[in-house]
Amino acid sequence: MTGHEWVVEAHGCDPVRLASLPALQALVDTMVAELALHPVAPAQWHRFPAPGGITGMLLLAESHLTVHTFPEHGSLCLNLFCCTPRAAWPFAPRLAALVGATDVRLRELVRDYAPGDEARRDGAPRPDAVPA
Amino acid sequence: MTGHEWVVEAHGCDPVRLASLPALQALVDTMVAELALHPVAPAQWHRFPAPGGITGMLLLAESHLTVHTFPEHGSLCLNLFCCTPRAAWPFAPRLAALVGATDVRLRELVRDYAPGDEARRDGAPRPDAVPA
Repeated sequence: MTGHEWVVEAHGCDPVRLASLPALQALVDTMVAELALHPVAPAQWHRFPAPGGITGMLLLAESHLTVHTFPEHGSLCLNLFCCTPRAAWPFAPRLAALVGATDVRLRELVRDYAPGDEARRDGAPRPDAVPA
Repeated sequence: MTGHEWVVEAHGCDPVRLASLPALQALVDTMVAELALHPVAPAQWHRFPAPGGITGMLLLAESHLTVHTFPEHGSLCLNLFCCTPRAAWPFAPRLAALVGATDVRLRELVRDYAPGDEARRDGAPRPDAVPA
């Protein structure tokens, strides 16, 4: 049993959309629809004082989706954690379309939550995890 | 401007505490107090059907804290994302004390949300980020 988390930084975004609650709700709604995710509670949103960054958090049956925007930098940070297998979303073109991102950096983390999953299926140790 | 995210998998935990809302609220409250975090909304909690895993999400001024438990595996997955510098929490001994974890795996991710931060301070490219 391994989960996957996509950790995304998107740059070059439209600052107006990054400070727009409807635009970010549309981003989250689009991801939910296109990835067939299952929210188990309404999304939680918070707008920070000027420059008006917004945080959104969505509790999913699959785990969670979070987004933080930085209008002053034209950037956002997004996490999607799914504890069951799932195809990746085309983050770069979709974030370009939805918030105007021009540079999307993506990391995919394997998250082992069952004993014996410390190694990948091919038997190699995970290079990115060390005992704390 | 770089944020840091700690991505944690803890194994060997006490299944009773992993299915206990008060125990997990105590974990979150302890992290908030010991790391001097600033919640901007009440934590959102959800208990899944048997085996009774619990998800908690806390929206922070610093970014977010999430925890997902898997009592059937004796494990939990935790994320703490802080968009401002912060000392690391001693995850292994604290998770041992709070939920009985015997094996704590920790990854610390640098999250660049300002233009020009694609390289670490020492000038080396991030080995763990690739264009999407």
